[in-house]
Amino acid sequence: MKSEFEGARVLITGGLGFIGSNLARRLDSFGAVITIVDSLIPDYGGNLHNIEGLQDRLQVNVSDVRDTHSLRYLVQGKDYLFNLAGQTSHLDSMRNPMPDLEINCQAQLSILETCRAYNPKIKIVFASTRQIYGRPNHLPVTEAHPINPVDVNGINKMAGEKYHLLYSDLYGIPATALRLTNTIGPRMRIKDARQTFVGLWVRQLIEGKPIEVWGGKQLRDFTDVEDAVDAFLLAAASPSTNGQVYNLGGSEVLDLETLAKMMVEINGSGEYAIREFPTDRRAIDIGDYYGDFSKIQTELGWTPQRTLRDTLQSTLVYFRGAMPHYL
Amino acid sequence: MKSEFEGARVLITGGLGFIGSNLARRLDSFGAVITIVDSLIPDYGGNLHNIEGLQDRLQVNVSDVRDTHSLRYLVQGKDYLFNLAGQTSHLDSMRNPMPDLEINCQAQLSILETCRAYNPKIKIVFASTRQIYGRPNHLPVTEAHPINPVDVNGINKMAGEKYHLLYSDLYGIPATALRLTNTIGPRMRIKDARQTFVGLWVRQLIEGKPIEVWGGKQLRDFTDVEDAVDAFLLAAASPSTNGQVYNLGGSEVLDLETLAKMMVEINGSGEYAIREFPTDRRAIDIGDYYGDFSKIQTELGWTPQRTLRDTLQSTLVYFRGAMPHYL
Repeated sequence: MKSEFEGARVLITGGLGFIGSNLARRLDSFGAVITIVDSLIPDYGGNLHNIEGLQDRLQVNVSDVRDTHSLRYLVQGKDYLFNLAGQTSHLDSMRNPMPDLEINCQAQLSILETCRAYNPKIKIVFASTRQIYGRPNHLPVTEAHPINPVDVNGINKMAGEKYHLLYSDLYGIPATALRLTNTIGPRMRIKDARQTFVGLWVRQLIEGKPIEVWGGKQLRDFTDVEDAVDAFLLAAASPSTNGQVYNLGGSEVLDLETLAKMMVEINGSGEYAIREFPTDRRAIDIGDYYGDFSKIQTELGWTPQRTLRDTLQSTLVYFRGAMPHYL
Repeated sequence: MKSEFEGARVLITGGLGFIGSNLARRLDSFGAVITIVDSLIPDYGGNLHNIEGLQDRLQVNVSDVRDTHSLRYLVQGKDYLFNLAGQTSHLDSMRNPMPDLEINCQAQLSILETCRAYNPKIKIVFASTRQIYGRPNHLPVTEAHPINPVDVNGINKMAGEKYHLLYSDLYGIPATALRLTNTIGPRMRIKDARQTFVGLWVRQLIEGKPIEVWGGKQLRDFTDVEDAVDAFLLAAASPSTNGQVYNLGGSEVLDLETLAKMMVEINGSGEYAIREFPTDRRAIDIGDYYGDFSKIQTELGWTPQRTLRDTLQSTLVYFRGAMPHYL
């Protein structure tokens, strides 16, 4: 991996966010030449603290992916585009659907058009989501599962993903998509549940408040952010991924109440409370979900390296030291 | 049907277009109170001649579905919204993808948000398309077939359709979608192949030029516009359609060369020429397609009433008299 990315010119949209900044750190350790694009929209995942210590080693360009002019300049001369900028809150996408459409759908088509015109050889890895499957018909969910999103965010992400695959198929722009599930680790958004509910749980635990568990019986899978970074790099490095989608997943599947118990135990203190689902959340909840990630395992040799316990441990350690930067 | 729509207040987006204007004529004969919204964008299907004789019996509001302000006013006080405005050219969606996204995707979400805020009881029938299936895995294609569009238009129409079903499921806005296949009849766009290739063939035939058939072996199905109008009205009249999608189809499936032969024969003169697919068209061609329309047949009692021969005959008769209005 180091040899693949040493000296490579890399653009990361959403690079001040959770996964983007962890990816930037790894790429920096490999000697890549990194440019980050991030809009720093307050309720989104971008946070300058996420690149603490790296400020002098990479370039931060504060702009929005809806700004086609800045992107036109930025994609030029790059070898890789890790395309992670997105609106991630399902509830926000229902309350205020247009920004979600503009970012997750329109800006994606615009980025691809820009690459087609100015840098058609750039390898793109797009951060898609398991949300596009909607409520699973069967478990585990494979990539062939019907696409049936149950919220505006899911519909827009679906379109965003499809544009990438289409531009790969039709124009030969080497693009691939990873369908992420709940990703956990240092630098995640913990202020609220806009990125993942686990972030808010981490905050509640550290603040000594009860974790609020909606429902509790839903099964979920989880990916350590370092494992997610592995997947982005493997997908970027292999031409066989062009035009393909891959599920990520994790080593364990468990229900949310069990997760809450495990987090309390690892934290050494705390409690959780099972709550009735609020109506607006229940309407867009997908029920049980866990993914089949054998495709990326077989084709790229990716496999989750960290146990969920280790992931939660390292996450709690990180945020105990860094809480003020994330509130 | 007459009793259902007599005195009903109806809004038709794309109402100066091919299907919209035929729908307006039928609704007018039932005594509906009709408002048409149409942008009259030159390369699209809107044509004032399509409502010749009806001008004093309905209201035409020239505005674009991207104009959220006009729609906010227009949806209020209506019982039905027949939502047919769209960008229909697959090739245009590839050459200039943003207008397609704005119209087929963004404006649809905006219309639904507007209905949610100002008229959540309005019954909506959305004109979707078989294009969203992409290249069929099996024939005939049922509504459960995977959604895998092969062009930007298909991706945007897919999103547009999904928004309708989502707003029906989550907010109880009574919306349904019809997945149209090639629709044929009087008032179609014949200037070029932007709406359907059959339109251009009609023009070529009447002008005494050879019909240009790309490929020729692809199987297709066809719907008479009056049958399509039946389907829109049945779907509008039945609450059981809310949140559902329905394929339309036709009484015959045939390959394009056979269709060309049939049109020459019905016309009484003319010829066709088989041509190599141009590269840009081949890339987004879906191969053989015909739909299974047993769902709408079983649930709503819809069935194609006209033979393809009769459809082609009436279409040719119409355009022989009206050609100058369509060039």
